[in-house]
Amino acid sequence: MKFGVVFFPTVGPEDKPAHQYFDECLRLVDLAEELGYDHVKMVEHYFFAYGGYSPDPVTFLAAAAGRTKRLRLGTSATIPAFVHPVKLAGKLAMLDNISHGRVDAAFGRAFLPDEFKAFGIPMDESRDRFVEGVEAVKLLWTTEDAEWKGTFHEFGPVTLLPRPVQRPHPPVFVTSARSVDSVVAAARAGHHLQTVPNAMTVDELRERVTVFRREWAAAGHDRPGQIHLTFPCVVAEDEGEAIARGRLDEERNTVAISQAVRAWQDTTSTAYPGYEKLADIGKRDLFDQKLADDKLLIGTPDQVAAQLRSIADLYGDDLTLSLGIHSGHLPVEQAETTLRLLADRVIPHLRREP
Amino acid sequence: MKFGVVFFPTVGPEDKPAHQYFDECLRLVDLAEELGYDHVKMVEHYFFAYGGYSPDPVTFLAAAAGRTKRLRLGTSATIPAFVHPVKLAGKLAMLDNISHGRVDAAFGRAFLPDEFKAFGIPMDESRDRFVEGVEAVKLLWTTEDAEWKGTFHEFGPVTLLPRPVQRPHPPVFVTSARSVDSVVAAARAGHHLQTVPNAMTVDELRERVTVFRREWAAAGHDRPGQIHLTFPCVVAEDEGEAIARGRLDEERNTVAISQAVRAWQDTTSTAYPGYEKLADIGKRDLFDQKLADDKLLIGTPDQVAAQLRSIADLYGDDLTLSLGIHSGHLPVEQAETTLRLLADRVIPHLRREP
Ligand SMILES: [Ca+2]
Ligand SMILES: [Ca+2]
Ligand SMILES: [Ca+2]
Ligand SMILES: [Ca+2]
Ligand SMILES: [Ca+2]
Ligand SMILES: [Ca+2]
Repeated sequence: MKFGVVFFPTVGPEDKPAHQYFDECLRLVDLAEELGYDHVKMVEHYFFAYGGYSPDPVTFLAAAAGRTKRLRLGTSATIPAFVHPVKLAGKLAMLDNISHGRVDAAFGRAFLPDEFKAFGIPMDESRDRFVEGVEAVKLLWTTEDAEWKGTFHEFGPVTLLPRPVQRPHPPVFVTSARSVDSVVAAARAGHHLQTVPNAMTVDELRERVTVFRREWAAAGHDRPGQIHLTFPCVVAEDEGEAIARGRLDEERNTVAISQAVRAWQDTTSTAYPGYEKLADIGKRDLFDQKLADDKLLIGTPDQVAAQLRSIADLYGDDLTLSLGIHSGHLPVEQAETTLRLLADRVIPHLRREP
Repeated sequence: MKFGVVFFPTVGPEDKPAHQYFDECLRLVDLAEELGYDHVKMVEHYFFAYGGYSPDPVTFLAAAAGRTKRLRLGTSATIPAFVHPVKLAGKLAMLDNISHGRVDAAFGRAFLPDEFKAFGIPMDESRDRFVEGVEAVKLLWTTEDAEWKGTFHEFGPVTLLPRPVQRPHPPVFVTSARSVDSVVAAARAGHHLQTVPNAMTVDELRERVTVFRREWAAAGHDRPGQIHLTFPCVVAEDEGEAIARGRLDEERNTVAISQAVRAWQDTTSTAYPGYEKLADIGKRDLFDQKLADDKLLIGTPDQVAAQLRSIADLYGDDLTLSLGIHSGHLPVEQAETTLRLLADRVIPHLRREP
């Protein structure tokens, strides 16, 4: 297993100023670099405390690139539907050059009605825009005199500058993996998988990772398929402290997502079957169940080590875990404690034997 | 006078890899921070060696923000016509937060037919898109529940996150200042002026700075108007070396712009009167004349100091100069020499007495 950090702010201006939040994140970036973590990632969302401090993940990742040498830099995810492919391909290629080839490019469909509304994009087009956007970006990254005639964009022949450092292009991940079909499509296309165990049952996730590995192998790609799983994570020496912090953080995150999905009360889209139920998300309190199901990594170093062994048993041990350690509600020192305890007392005992 | 650095790459993949160019720029950023320069800036262009390594200036500036504490960070310029206002306002606001309020936001109309073509934007709409884009960005930066119903965009009510650190918003500069009317409009709107002496005659520039100062004063803004002028700059101990380097750089820059404006051979736009003549730009060799007119700052420390005194006499001494010291064709060490000689031997003798 590899381990990194995903930043998903759920604070707004009343909770913590954005400049303070970013200072804290960059402090954690420096610590993650020092401690040997694999990556840092940043989300893309708008308008709400739920991720809204980061409408452009590349901007944050570039600041991280400017002060690190080793960490990989991931979008988690970026949304092709909201931007022209030339802009998206261009800024990711700049980041890949500035960082000397450290970009992991995860793309998502997005799912918040207010975001689509602000950009004037019908939600029913989201899958088609996602597919077209990812393909157009890959074409721009890899092809001189690229020409594109799609449903939503038409351009070329143009030759993108700069071209990415990583050849043929940065690893592409997809996060739109609720349906098994989209997992199959991703594996066949050579797109890696980034997903959130919290958003499905244990059995659903097992099925998806199994299908992904099978389809990836069948496709005969010349590189291993990557599965990145995102987990909220709080580690402390004292179990009671870890649980209290983790519970508070989960409560605040639930409040934030509840605000962001409120528009699903009045929205239905055939492209998002079942999403109208998201409007009820704040009514559930599933902390204890989620913890028991290892969807939250919370506890002492020994407890979290046991959770990680369960996760390896459930989903395989060739996983990369992205840890949500700093939504902004807990003091940054507690996120530092989590990173240090994992690096000192948990991760060294989990590495696969060579 | 204040002094900073503007990066305008005119190298392509055959000249220097983009990762090397950005490494060199970040090395110059560190030196500029150390030597007390005022700012660094980055251009936005596409597809051609002429600026094309930087399709997204905010990405580069964020990398600079991640490793500096003091330098201001300027777009030079960014183009509202090619991006949704929510994206542009959002990433500039992220940069303003990450940098603790160091953003100077310059916006431009753009003028290269191939760029407009790739984005599917008619050139004749460029002024209207520029005006609408800048106003929409300012509304998003300053207003809760912002609503916009424009010609090209419609959104809201939405409240942008994050809001900029600088209140009411980062300084706004306009670069579309060929016409006196646009200078008047900028001053009245409280937009600062960023322009390139190389693109007009001495008399034209004098008229524009005079008009700008007069209109700014008449408008009664609560802050001083800023005029930023961009100059190619090469300083060396030996006059012959400085001239040889400066001439080589100017030749390469002319080749690059000639390639980028080639489409003007087959383009006319009523929104760009006279631009079809740009297609002839490579046929002129005006180095000696430009040097004599102080449009290029090239020579020994004493010679450049004399040029700067001429510039102060011509245009006033309340100017900020952005120095084009590294288009990528000369070794980065020569740009370092320029920065050091200016900081040690020129700038200290020019500062206005308190
Ligand atoms: Ca809030
Ligand atoms: Ca997402
Ligand atoms: Ca368990
Ligand atoms: Ca070239
Ligand atoms: Ca420009
Ligand atoms: Ca002169």
